[in-house]
Amino acid sequence: MSLDGYVAGPDQSVQHPIGIGGERLHEWLMPLAAFRESHGAEGGEINASTPFAEDILAGAGATIMGRNMFGGGPGPWDGDSWKGWWGDDPPFHHPVFVLTHHPREPLEMAGGTTFHFVTDGIESALEQARASAGDGGVSLGGGASVAQQYLSAGLLDELVVSVVPILLGGGAPLFGNLGDPVPTLKQVEAVGAPGVTHIRYVLPRS
Amino acid sequence: MSLDGYVAGPDQSVQHPIGIGGERLHEWLMPLAAFRESHGAEGGEINASTPFAEDILAGAGATIMGRNMFGGGPGPWDGDSWKGWWGDDPPFHHPVFVLTHHPREPLEMAGGTTFHFVTDGIESALEQARASAGDGGVSLGGGASVAQQYLSAGLLDELVVSVVPILLGGGAPLFGNLGDPVPTLKQVEAVGAPGVTHIRYVLPRS
Repeated sequence: MSLDGYVAGPDQSVQHPIGIGGERLHEWLMPLAAFRESHGAEGGEINASTPFAEDILAGAGATIMGRNMFGGGPGPWDGDSWKGWWGDDPPFHHPVFVLTHHPREPLEMAGGTTFHFVTDGIESALEQARASAGDGGVSLGGGASVAQQYLSAGLLDELVVSVVPILLGGGAPLFGNLGDPVPTLKQVEAVGAPGVTHIRYVLPRS
Repeated sequence: MSLDGYVAGPDQSVQHPIGIGGERLHEWLMPLAAFRESHGAEGGEINASTPFAEDILAGAGATIMGRNMFGGGPGPWDGDSWKGWWGDDPPFHHPVFVLTHHPREPLEMAGGTTFHFVTDGIESALEQARASAGDGGVSLGGGASVAQQYLSAGLLDELVVSVVPILLGGGAPLFGNLGDPVPTLKQVEAVGAPGVTHIRYVLPRS
């Protein structure tokens, strides 16, 4: 999240999937060995962000994401030819549940990632993700709208906000539509790392 | 700042100077010995927030604040009888420059605090504050509008954001009206403390 609260910059499009300037949100992540390894590359840095990157990249047994994070243009699936932003071997290496209104057969990729398309809502996606995660947790990948839906429904156990020292001035705000009452958070960890501060919160089950 | 970006809750008024729920933004600060001492009380806690509280409360030689932070109701000064929210012995103990459109004679309080009312803009207030701060720095007290004006004008050297684990859902956002280009920040310190994470940024002079 940018310091002014955005998890994507303004004017998201196929050319700018994270919006204008949004790629700067991930600058702390890209140089890490944990990130490079999950993308099949060697080398890279190890620093205070490493445990958080490992959590994001390898800590879960299943991932849930929204339709915009999976991508595929503004309309319905383009002939089911769109296979996500991540190439033939996506960095998830576990089942991924994509929330969408457009039914589609599961899409099996290399390296253990299968995209499942869920059309019957966030609770169904969570059930399916839990069932397939085994002993691992379920990670909520994004984007903002999906995070807001799970947060306001009281379905998040934990929230890690990685605050990046940039101001985007617009884009997709992480928080909004919080519901009533608004969720309560308890801060349990805060770690400063190069170019980012990670803050971990737990949320009591509502 | 709340995790969703507000430095005051919604519906600010004389009854709720920091807005509905906004007093929770300061819950990390109130129990500290540094806070209690600046308000003439004894006892209190010492924890990882202490250096940040001392910075806010005693680290500066002068403070600048906006008209809403000084208070006095929505209209012009109420017969110059309003003396701020802080009683006869305000916790500043140095000159305070209040940005306003309503001229008023300086107001000398007990304990070293004198309120000066500046009607000719943020740069004039900064010049006057610098001149009277001596060897100390100039602290920008708030609120959000004044912080935004100094930030977008490129006049801040340093910004400390204390991220509180609450969601307010509305109120006075810290960031906005950032100017073009938006200010650049460099994170230099991040400290987790009970109920808050302090992140210190420096800003190159524009």
